[in-house]
Amino acid sequence: MKLQLALDTCTVSEALSVLRNIGHLIDIVEAGTPFVLRYGLDVVRQIKLEFPRLQVMADLKIMDAGDLESRMAFDSGADVVSVLAVADDATIRAAVDQANQQGKSILVDMIGTKNLDARVGELERLGAHCLCVHTAKDRQRQGPGPWHDLELVTRLVRNSKVAVAGGIGLENMAQLLELKPDVIIVGSGITQAADPHRAAVALRRLIDERQP
Amino acid sequence: MKLQLALDTCTVSEALSVLRNIGHLIDIVEAGTPFVLRYGLDVVRQIKLEFPRLQVMADLKIMDAGDLESRMAFDSGADVVSVLAVADDATIRAAVDQANQQGKSILVDMIGTKNLDARVGELERLGAHCLCVHTAKDRQRQGPGPWHDLELVTRLVRNSKVAVAGGIGLENMAQLLELKPDVIIVGSGITQAADPHRAAVALRRLIDERQP
Repeated sequence: MKLQLALDTCTVSEALSVLRNIGHLIDIVEAGTPFVLRYGLDVVRQIKLEFPRLQVMADLKIMDAGDLESRMAFDSGADVVSVLAVADDATIRAAVDQANQQGKSILVDMIGTKNLDARVGELERLGAHCLCVHTAKDRQRQGPGPWHDLELVTRLVRNSKVAVAGGIGLENMAQLLELKPDVIIVGSGITQAADPHRAAVALRRLIDERQP
Repeated sequence: MKLQLALDTCTVSEALSVLRNIGHLIDIVEAGTPFVLRYGLDVVRQIKLEFPRLQVMADLKIMDAGDLESRMAFDSGADVVSVLAVADDATIRAAVDQANQQGKSILVDMIGTKNLDARVGELERLGAHCLCVHTAKDRQRQGPGPWHDLELVTRLVRNSKVAVAGGIGLENMAQLLELKPDVIIVGSGITQAADPHRAAVALRRLIDERQP
């Protein structure tokens, strides 16, 4: 089980400072969508330069131009790039092909997917390396969180890895670990904690206790 | 009818050079998704600084964090920001609210929308300023282009403006003009033309001849 830290609303120097503080406690760092929109893909290069042993996920949420946009992110040093599950199959396939050529991988973000049951099998046939169950930020206040969808996806999936994102923190981590996702993505649960280092240590410990 | 030029794969200096050449022939310049991903939203500021009379559309294709991401783009000087029609209603509403507060507008990109008939009315109720019929780049080789969907959307729409994008150039402009969209978005039809200036002049003339 891997711990991924999502950085969304920080400056580049804040991001590097957070990583100096807790980079050793995480497996993957995510250059979040707003972070990439603000500064461009060069942020991936800067993170990789200072933290070459961290995996970097570029959260582009690709919806079109699957080959071009995934290639841009991989060329900047990203190890994983996100594509939307609601994108056209041709877009997902193009991104997966590009990832396979480079020995990298695609995370398919299932945010906003209506037909989750059917889509899991289709995404696996398209070669998606990882499926991410994701409750939209704009929905977290209303909804029940990703638990129900995560349970469904982990039950259906055969080959792909499973990631989960959306409102995850210490308070709901135990419930999440029962479902054994491969990647747990935490953003404000660490970065907005009163003590981000302490939150990361506690999350890391919970995960490590569950490792087989 | 407005002509929007989409800039996707150029460098910043190429973009500014294209705009010096044909900026007077277009109404709106689009900072395309790959262009923003590569350089960050500062490209919007740079374009606005040199071309203050051009409207700028930031093609963020927002899927989550509708308030945050649209605000970032408006703060960079964008006049219009794109949100995906497949995003959650809460995301679209948040972006529309932010646009209304700033006197700016939201283009909802209908790429990948399955239930076009029903979604048009829903998007209008959410306050979308403009609905964009859009054939994915990754689909343009296979499909029939946006004509059928454009015909459907222009028939259903009551208040929102209608834009159209995806594989548009001189060769199919006449057919498109019959459907009277409010905004016609052209990318490679101008930028990849043998003579971009000549292509832009010809497109501008076709549009102006149709003006009421």
